[in-house]
Amino acid sequence: MITEIAQIEVKPGMESEFESGVKTAAPIFKRAKGCRAMELRRSLEKPSRYRLFVAWETVENHTNDFRGSPDFQEWRKLVAHCFASPPEVEHVAQVLRGF
Amino acid sequence: MITEIAQIEVKPGMESEFESGVKTAAPIFKRAKGCRAMELRRSLEKPSRYRLFVAWETVENHTNDFRGSPDFQEWRKLVAHCFASPPEVEHVAQVLRGF
Repeated sequence: MITEIAQIEVKPGMESEFESGVKTAAPIFKRAKGCRAMELRRSLEKPSRYRLFVAWETVENHTNDFRGSPDFQEWRKLVAHCFASPPEVEHVAQVLRGF
Repeated sequence: MITEIAQIEVKPGMESEFESGVKTAAPIFKRAKGCRAMELRRSLEKPSRYRLFVAWETVENHTNDFRGSPDFQEWRKLVAHCFASPPEVEHVAQVLRGF
């Protein structure tokens, strides 16, 4: 299990529209192959900055299966017009669960 | 409840020592006022990059209470020599739990 972290800068004033788009998109992720969880977090220091966390069984479930599917285009249709810049995407693996 | 995300670049070759330091430091966080969870994740694309996630009841539990405590110095003693650069710290709040 790995987690995709997408750092997304939203155009100022479009925060509500972006959040609404992500909410609408939740079923798209839920039905994606290997997708196990999704949540959206917002920066307190920079309120136009969000981080989307998506848990996938494998990196390829994200980079190949999801990005190559028609649902990826649906996802972008819902939110891409709110992006101030291209999202910065990285994958992380848990190495320690302290408590 | 908010989450501190500290992005930490570790000096190449010091990854194991850093991970071990974070593990040793877990009780320091566990006893910190308002601290509810801690985990360490490692980037797949840049293996010397880590993200430490710490859940706090309030931002001030982190920025005032913890950083002002002797335990903060203990924490730094365990890991700071592994840092390649100062950590980038941000706080986020969950705005959507998709599933």
